[in-house]
Amino acid sequence: MKRIAAILQSDPSMIEITVKGWVRSFRNDRFIALNDGSTIHNLQAVIEPENYDRDLLDQINVAAAVAVTGTLTESAGSGQRIELQATKIEILATADPEEVKKTILSPKKHNLETLREQAHLRVRTNTFGAVMRVRAALSFAVHKYFQEQGFYQAHTPIITGSDAEGAGEMFRISTLDPKNPPLDEEGNIDYKQDFFEKESNLTVSGQLEAETYAMGLGQVYTFGPTFRAENSNTSRHLAEFWMIEPEVAFNDLDANMDLAEGFLKSVIDYALENCADDIAFLEKRQADEDKQKPAAERSPMPLREKLEFIGKNNFKRVSYTEAIDILRNSKPNKKKKFKYPINEWGADLQSEHERYLVEKHFECPVILFDYPAKIKAFYMRLNDKDANGNETVRAMDILFPGIGEMVGGSQREERYDVLKQKMTDMEISEEELGWYLEMRKFGSVVHSGFGLGFERLVMFVTGMGNIRDVIPYPRTPGNAEF
Amino acid sequence: MKRIAAILQSDPSMIEITVKGWVRSFRNDRFIALNDGSTIHNLQAVIEPENYDRDLLDQINVAAAVAVTGTLTESAGSGQRIELQATKIEILATADPEEVKKTILSPKKHNLETLREQAHLRVRTNTFGAVMRVRAALSFAVHKYFQEQGFYQAHTPIITGSDAEGAGEMFRISTLDPKNPPLDEEGNIDYKQDFFEKESNLTVSGQLEAETYAMGLGQVYTFGPTFRAENSNTSRHLAEFWMIEPEVAFNDLDANMDLAEGFLKSVIDYALENCADDIAFLEKRQADEDKQKPAAERSPMPLREKLEFIGKNNFKRVSYTEAIDILRNSKPNKKKKFKYPINEWGADLQSEHERYLVEKHFECPVILFDYPAKIKAFYMRLNDKDANGNETVRAMDILFPGIGEMVGGSQREERYDVLKQKMTDMEISEEELGWYLEMRKFGSVVHSGFGLGFERLVMFVTGMGNIRDVIPYPRTPGNAEF
Repeated sequence: MKRIAAILQSDPSMIEITVKGWVRSFRNDRFIALNDGSTIHNLQAVIEPENYDRDLLDQINVAAAVAVTGTLTESAGSGQRIELQATKIEILATADPEEVKKTILSPKKHNLETLREQAHLRVRTNTFGAVMRVRAALSFAVHKYFQEQGFYQAHTPIITGSDAEGAGEMFRISTLDPKNPPLDEEGNIDYKQDFFEKESNLTVSGQLEAETYAMGLGQVYTFGPTFRAENSNTSRHLAEFWMIEPEVAFNDLDANMDLAEGFLKSVIDYALENCADDIAFLEKRQADEDKQKPAAERSPMPLREKLEFIGKNNFKRVSYTEAIDILRNSKPNKKKKFKYPINEWGADLQSEHERYLVEKHFECPVILFDYPAKIKAFYMRLNDKDANGNETVRAMDILFPGIGEMVGGSQREERYDVLKQKMTDMEISEEELGWYLEMRKFGSVVHSGFGLGFERLVMFVTGMGNIRDVIPYPRTPGNAEF
Repeated sequence: MKRIAAILQSDPSMIEITVKGWVRSFRNDRFIALNDGSTIHNLQAVIEPENYDRDLLDQINVAAAVAVTGTLTESAGSGQRIELQATKIEILATADPEEVKKTILSPKKHNLETLREQAHLRVRTNTFGAVMRVRAALSFAVHKYFQEQGFYQAHTPIITGSDAEGAGEMFRISTLDPKNPPLDEEGNIDYKQDFFEKESNLTVSGQLEAETYAMGLGQVYTFGPTFRAENSNTSRHLAEFWMIEPEVAFNDLDANMDLAEGFLKSVIDYALENCADDIAFLEKRQADEDKQKPAAERSPMPLREKLEFIGKNNFKRVSYTEAIDILRNSKPNKKKKFKYPINEWGADLQSEHERYLVEKHFECPVILFDYPAKIKAFYMRLNDKDANGNETVRAMDILFPGIGEMVGGSQREERYDVLKQKMTDMEISEEELGWYLEMRKFGSVVHSGFGLGFERLVMFVTGMGNIRDVIPYPRTPGNAEF
């Protein structure tokens, strides 16, 4: 059975077809707008009401499902090129209008918060249908890109016995009796009796495991769920989100930046090519939303133009040290408009600084690199000290307008002795991460990788402002419904 | 930089290239077998030892990494068509032979259990390189197949507040103080103070959420990790495994069987086409292993032939009722060779029965359908009672030789009243799964789906006998290392 997305591309034909879908509207007992989820557009089915019982017509309600048989003809009306002249209608499933009225399926504007409360129904709306099709397209584009570049997906573990990575707070998992857990002789919980015979958590990143695979397969990536047990109730954080983490043997940081930039351009181009209708719909949606906002909060470019801009322009590459100079001498810093003033080298950059660099100063995506060693993770490769005696690591962040950090990556510390020393200095348990360190004994080559929070990418491409609206069932503090 | 898989396909050329990889062997101070993970095959680099310092030659050890510059020439030796005549060698990373000797990287045969203990290194071996490349190819084939069929991937949640699905024991997740959890007035743990403000677990299946998405997007699939907190220490069970779950609106059970069969044939064909070298290696490996086994345990067909057999033959479709007749009258049943004798209709089929049907009786993959309602889940569509008064549901399992259950699926109960009654009868909490039931009020059409444990598929295609050897870092009772 052809789906509506394909049917709308067809030419008129005398061959009878049957189309199944859900009713989005029914006008004048004559015009059914039919949708099957394959496209933002509806197929107009035209019926002769006098050919059908009143009983049947009364069941053609919003959210009901019907099978319409007929032939495709040129449409006389505006708004569609082609329509289905119905010869037969079958009600596949009803929807009581009184019940529909109580839900977000009722044909009126609902705000995003109400939609979130009915997350099991919201994918049936135009906005969420579009967002979720774009999300799926981006997801496929990720696999396609890496496949074409000769990468292998590595399915790194979700449950981990390590909690030493320090990337964030973790969720503990257990099958012990939560009320009366067994205790050891010292009165601590006896995790030896737990399912995995040790304390175990949900992963915050598959990077370290992916690195071990890059040392075997050369070029790998992960694409799976990761977790943060942080009490962040913002529009950009989830407790459960999907992360993409490529890891490449023999790549230095420059090659890593090239990979990340090429990757982002490729997947965004894929969405532009394959989701034109959904992106057009979402562009209009964003424009409508912007009308309600103060000028300063509006999107600087229409959605498609913004996405095309990414493909056409090189990301600006700027060292942390240069960025600090720019920020120190910036207007908002001098006028004390930053909540965290930039006074000296070594400061951690806050969201306000990143936004200034990207949205005001450079007005394009920016790759910041060579961050102070002190504010970055233990596994990043140490640079030689600079002329001022400052110690940096080969880290990079890619900052996007409206989103902030899209990518965080680094060249990894491949030198056994240096890594061992850093683990000691930063109190990383060698007992837990001994396997990671041991990797460095055997053919430990220069290598690099990055992490990209998939939902941030979906936000950017769909123009949605809240991360909870780009994943089917968002997990946030206090929310694990459905 | 071209990778070795591509280089081995090249013709001789005077253009100098540089190849980076790890040393798999170094013979006579002259022949380096170089591997970069892109293929099971090594590139032979030929050096003139008199051109290099002894120091450098001494560093060309197994597991060390080198960059070799030179030109590709026809190989004089047997075993390869082409080789690299080196003009320059650079040691990228060393590997101390004494240290290598202590690990599975040492060039001798190691058993699979030892390899498992060094899971951070095992991907550098031929066997695991091959398995993980095949795994990655299958993973991509899954996405490609569904993409081409117009499906959308739905990222269903990993953390769930429902524990009502009854598919298996669950892992509890929490951020409460494990030793002194807060209690409510009744002395129970006060999960309102937990991160999600309710008891929460790791998902056992994304099916129910995927169904909600099929009702919006029409055709969706999940491909993500799922969990079972079951104390199963077998070669076919993991506590964490990846599952694929398509869900299709308007599909009845026959269409569901067609989808599953077409899907399996497609992804296996993809592996045959794209992993020929790895499959040839694994076929030889299996043949070698078989030599150590009693005749009854050996693979009935060579690996490639077995995989091709799948593509060429229709799966046999057999109702549960027919299967019971076959089993009841089978030799092993009559001779009391089954551990669980089959006496009457309604019996749950055990692994021994499934194997008999697939491996002895039909000798091909089998789709069993229309199982007794009593032994299947609440969400499966109820059939009308048969002539004998037996009640069945529109369930299907696909059984594969050597693997057992590869796929479990069903047409879903789309009728609100019937579903509600079944939830009551089977004590499924309406409070927890009210959203699932509510879906049935609005355009609730016939729909179907199935679940496939990805690791079972990888086992089948690679011929590996233990599920722990087809996933990078297996999670089983007592094991969450790395």
